[in-house]
Amino acid sequence: MNRRRFLSVVPAGLLAAAMGSDITPREAQAAAEQTPNAQPIPVTNDERIAELIAANHILADLGVLDGFGHVSVRSATNSKHYFMARSVASAAVAQADILEFDEDSKPVDARSHELYGERFIHGEIYRLRPDVQSVVHSHTAAVLPFGLTEVPLKALIHTAFFLGTEPAPVFDMRKAVGPENHMLVVDTTSGAALARILGDRSVVLMRGHGMAVAAPSIRDAVFRAIYTRENAEVEMEALKLGNPVFMSQFEVTRFDRATRQWNEWVAEAEARRSGR
Amino acid sequence: MNRRRFLSVVPAGLLAAAMGSDITPREAQAAAEQTPNAQPIPVTNDERIAELIAANHILADLGVLDGFGHVSVRSATNSKHYFMARSVASAAVAQADILEFDEDSKPVDARSHELYGERFIHGEIYRLRPDVQSVVHSHTAAVLPFGLTEVPLKALIHTAFFLGTEPAPVFDMRKAVGPENHMLVVDTTSGAALARILGDRSVVLMRGHGMAVAAPSIRDAVFRAIYTRENAEVEMEALKLGNPVFMSQFEVTRFDRATRQWNEWVAEAEARRSGR
Amino acid sequence: MNRRRFLSVVPAGLLAAAMGSDITPREAQAAAEQTPNAQPIPVTNDERIAELIAANHILADLGVLDGFGHVSVRSATNSKHYFMARSVASAAVAQADILEFDEDSKPVDARSHELYGERFIHGEIYRLRPDVQSVVHSHTAAVLPFGLTEVPLKALIHTAFFLGTEPAPVFDMRKAVGPENHMLVVDTTSGAALARILGDRSVVLMRGHGMAVAAPSIRDAVFRAIYTRENAEVEMEALKLGNPVFMSQFEVTRFDRATRQWNEWVAEAEARRSGR
Amino acid sequence: MNRRRFLSVVPAGLLAAAMGSDITPREAQAAAEQTPNAQPIPVTNDERIAELIAANHILADLGVLDGFGHVSVRSATNSKHYFMARSVASAAVAQADILEFDEDSKPVDARSHELYGERFIHGEIYRLRPDVQSVVHSHTAAVLPFGLTEVPLKALIHTAFFLGTEPAPVFDMRKAVGPENHMLVVDTTSGAALARILGDRSVVLMRGHGMAVAAPSIRDAVFRAIYTRENAEVEMEALKLGNPVFMSQFEVTRFDRATRQWNEWVAEAEARRSGR
Repeated sequence: MNRRRFLSVVPAGLLAAAMGSDITPREAQAAAEQTPNAQPIPVTNDERIAELIAANHILADLGVLDGFGHVSVRSATNSKHYFMARSVASAAVAQADILEFDEDSKPVDARSHELYGERFIHGEIYRLRPDVQSVVHSHTAAVLPFGLTEVPLKALIHTAFFLGTEPAPVFDMRKAVGPENHMLVVDTTSGAALARILGDRSVVLMRGHGMAVAAPSIRDAVFRAIYTRENAEVEMEALKLGNPVFMSQFEVTRFDRATRQWNEWVAEAEARRSGR
Repeated sequence: MNRRRFLSVVPAGLLAAAMGSDITPREAQAAAEQTPNAQPIPVTNDERIAELIAANHILADLGVLDGFGHVSVRSATNSKHYFMARSVASAAVAQADILEFDEDSKPVDARSHELYGERFIHGEIYRLRPDVQSVVHSHTAAVLPFGLTEVPLKALIHTAFFLGTEPAPVFDMRKAVGPENHMLVVDTTSGAALARILGDRSVVLMRGHGMAVAAPSIRDAVFRAIYTRENAEVEMEALKLGNPVFMSQFEVTRFDRATRQWNEWVAEAEARRSGR
Repeated sequence: MNRRRFLSVVPAGLLAAAMGSDITPREAQAAAEQTPNAQPIPVTNDERIAELIAANHILADLGVLDGFGHVSVRSATNSKHYFMARSVASAAVAQADILEFDEDSKPVDARSHELYGERFIHGEIYRLRPDVQSVVHSHTAAVLPFGLTEVPLKALIHTAFFLGTEPAPVFDMRKAVGPENHMLVVDTTSGAALARILGDRSVVLMRGHGMAVAAPSIRDAVFRAIYTRENAEVEMEALKLGNPVFMSQFEVTRFDRATRQWNEWVAEAEARRSGR
Repeated sequence: MNRRRFLSVVPAGLLAAAMGSDITPREAQAAAEQTPNAQPIPVTNDERIAELIAANHILADLGVLDGFGHVSVRSATNSKHYFMARSVASAAVAQADILEFDEDSKPVDARSHELYGERFIHGEIYRLRPDVQSVVHSHTAAVLPFGLTEVPLKALIHTAFFLGTEPAPVFDMRKAVGPENHMLVVDTTSGAALARILGDRSVVLMRGHGMAVAAPSIRDAVFRAIYTRENAEVEMEALKLGNPVFMSQFEVTRFDRATRQWNEWVAEAEARRSGR
């Protein structure tokens, strides 16, 4: 991969940071604010957890997460750790459900809770990608056909610019772990294999399973998960009509600050919950 | 069919049980708990009926059952009998609607209620499949194209592993009962024909009509009905893009305890009803 | 058309009646009750109007009618007249909105209300088809592709048996009325042309516009409108997979009393309205 | 373009007006009322803003606008100015969010609000098309495939007559502004390029982005945005079945006063908001 494409999918200001592994959350935040594409990430864990809860609700309400998916955020005080809910439906995640996990995806204090079996998706992406501050794993049906066939998922609609001009990588556990696999990323080995396939990209498809989305902030992770689905839906229909015009190398680097959606999505999620 | 595939679709611990027909609910429960795939089934009829009511609401709310479908559970105290609602919309099923049926699908006490005409689907599957504790019959539109054409429905997404690697069998009443049929399974003869086509599988498609789903627990029956639809939807789109990679012989035997979804689905169904 | 197919789509007991034009509502009711397929129709106008209001709500709530469609019922006391709402959204139709129309689709007393421009669809079908007691006209998107192309819409799913084994007829105003038409059935001439294309069938597609559904009762009209859409949706997907097995001559004559759905649909429509 | 087609897409009474640029809102209103297709537009700014707020809610509720789209109306008192919300989600737009913009899309008084970056779509269409009183810009997924491929979007369903018989024009910023573009219409130059591609038509597709809809009233803009989506959905499915019969030159000039929908849509939007 040449440097130019790297620039097109990773915020430029995080390039240096991405080279080392000791980036602090504050440095990540500073880098994100310098770059055109990234949205801000809170500097305290309390704020990060509040956004994480909102992200769970938004992604569940919009149908990106079903009962099986999850979203996480890197810790602001220990960049090797991350926060994620205990094993619970995303739509119902509350403050008390959030646990801290270490670099091997072991809970710091599980408080007797059952855990998401596939938390290693998150832990291993954080280990390999210091620029990543938030990860989503989902079973979103619209992206599945692209992980099951040779048809590439690429940036077609301008809100999915982060998909870039190269096909989204596909993680097939049968190839990465061997034919006698469990289809699930339930240990550090398979998690690391997935993270390597993701590489420096935003989205990795998981054959017959779903996808993992990596982003420099919680807001971007939510945005990317939503618009990856939208790109997949539009690409599927466009392919049936003919050869669609994909975005160009230049177009995928465009500016797109999507703060407006975040505030709207949070407001809608809260309205639904207060109405209950 | 060789023994290997049998293992891949029927919980291994139920193999011996499946050979005889006198398995008790307690033995079925024990077997289910030993097997990796099966979810628990309550040991008392009160608890089974409570889960059955929840299953009706969940499947109606998620659109798997429309006005015509139904779900049943084997009796915990008389393994030849089963419980199912009187003829009523699934979304509205309550305790007072549940009736007990004998091995010939005759109501023990109909209490003047109208009955589902197609209850023989349930009765005859219970007769032929002692390992089955719960059955769903639905008109789910997404599976219909696979019952109407030569295109096989097979396990493509990991949550539908129970579909196995062989095409889901198709029950065409025109072949099973003759050209002058009623399209409906309204007697023991057509029910038995359907059960034979189902064989030892989880799902049988019904041409121009819908499907029947068999499972070792109510929770699994609900799970399987939902993810059969999801598999059908994804397969339909993947087929339009190319040749999808179906799950392998090994992958369909994977572990997948889906208790989390059950609790979530029950909570959502209750929330919707209390909000009424 | 031979007599056999006629029998398959029109309730047999109405055959004689269909030959003359002076059938009374009571005779139609008696005939409907003798036939296997037809649901009952109330014998008083008050009851018919109550069902008509419910039908408006059901079809609007299920998305079969959008702002443009309408449903009507023949008068119980004057078989040349029919009842239909004034020009208003179906979802909001109330008792006070119902008007009586004569055999030329003129309002008996318009009470200064604006009228549906396309009421002639109803009036002319009632004139030509004495067996028909209720008519639905809708813009349902799923049926449109079948009216726009050469691909025939035929009975594929068992709940749409009334579509029969022959392609649903297509009304193309360009052919029926001439190239300089208004695309709309806004007079008796174009209404009569549409009724002739419908002939003795249940459903006529309208090119680029929608469909008209004719039935021996309000309940059947609602049922047929809903399951014509379902059949169209399933047929569209099945055609993409291969050559689907359509229903046979015998199968389309099957018994299917769908009273259960009616009661459920009414209950749901009322629940939504009382919740407002 | 010959005069005949022009007549088919622009209300005839506005023809003379469209020639000059000094049409007053009252003249536009008068012209609209004389023409068969156009719906009325209020003559005072207070009424226009009330309709604009309703339009925001309707288009958001029906899913035509997501977080990114917007709708505007020309000022009744200064035909070079227009009203549009500040940068806020359409579903939540209220009186206090409405700002006035001048002919260069600069806010008359921004009141420190953030603005929609793509307001130049609106401003430049108003500049080039004096007959246009309202503009919608949306990311509606269903129309995207037609902007991404060579397949033309044309009037297929009678409620989308305004699309006309010629392919909807496609604005590809890569061609209009050059390969190093931002995919967004964020200045008068790109806005003017878009308006030129729109020409005298109702709808312009934006490659990989969405569409812009121009209309002689707010009600028509809402109607056109909704039925452009419907036409796209039906055309997509019809194309998969065969060669659909598109509307003829004569048919697209037909009368279709859609006031009924407007009142219904407003009532529904208000009901949803009062229920909150």
